[in-house]
Amino acid sequence: MRHYEDIAVGERVELGSYTVTKAEIREFAEQYDPQPIHVDEAAARESVYGGLIASGWHTAAVCMRLLSEGFLNETASMGSPGLDELRWLAPVRPGDTLSASVEILDTRPSESREDRGYVKNRLVGRNQEGDDVISWEATNIIGRRP
Amino acid sequence: MRHYEDIAVGERVELGSYTVTKAEIREFAEQYDPQPIHVDEAAARESVYGGLIASGWHTAAVCMRLLSEGFLNETASMGSPGLDELRWLAPVRPGDTLSASVEILDTRPSESREDRGYVKNRLVGRNQEGDDVISWEATNIIGRRP
Repeated sequence: MRHYEDIAVGERVELGSYTVTKAEIREFAEQYDPQPIHVDEAAARESVYGGLIASGWHTAAVCMRLLSEGFLNETASMGSPGLDELRWLAPVRPGDTLSASVEILDTRPSESREDRGYVKNRLVGRNQEGDDVISWEATNIIGRRP
Repeated sequence: MRHYEDIAVGERVELGSYTVTKAEIREFAEQYDPQPIHVDEAAARESVYGGLIASGWHTAAVCMRLLSEGFLNETASMGSPGLDELRWLAPVRPGDTLSASVEILDTRPSESREDRGYVKNRLVGRNQEGDDVISWEATNIIGRRP
């Protein structure tokens, strides 16, 4: 288990990959983002995207899965107050394989609570062509070593 | 169908509500955010949260569902380049009923494409106690009237 003290500015972690199927794109979007470009193949073909694309929230969720498994679940993570500069940079289409990496931008101890610190990080998700499809800058709360 | 020209700065739309069950919290998190506070009831009880809480991405997805159904699907939406200031303000717990509203902050026509404009908006999601649980500021691309 890694704690706040073990995380260094400049560290970069590769987070593995995840293939997004057409069935999963539709299933996610029918539940959480039922816009025609995500759930209606004929309408999506007629749209500016020329075919079904994943909900941006689905792309984010896939990258969160990679971040959880590749970083946070080995770390004393205590949640997150939020993020900034979430950007959807290119469409994600059925069959795309996304990979992600996270880089540590800044660390600072909590001023009010001795048991935790804040870790600012930048996540980038890419498709199999190497094109960036999503990025964000988040703050995570990480427990200090007891 | 509403177009870019129909959307006015200051407009505020109430987006309806959605109840988040424990089963859905676990199902979402097992797929996309398998951290103990979201999927492991015993570990969550021992955490700073004192029980299972929804993934922040699940809370966002629920609000996106409300935004899609209550606003975007009646609008000539063409996607979004991204958002800023996403904040998770309070935990979402099993059985919570979330409601959301969106307010139009700014509109500007695209300089490079005559068929669209950009609509900046702020979404706020609240629980049944009236506590804000999430907020973000997004830009949506909205088609102009043909």
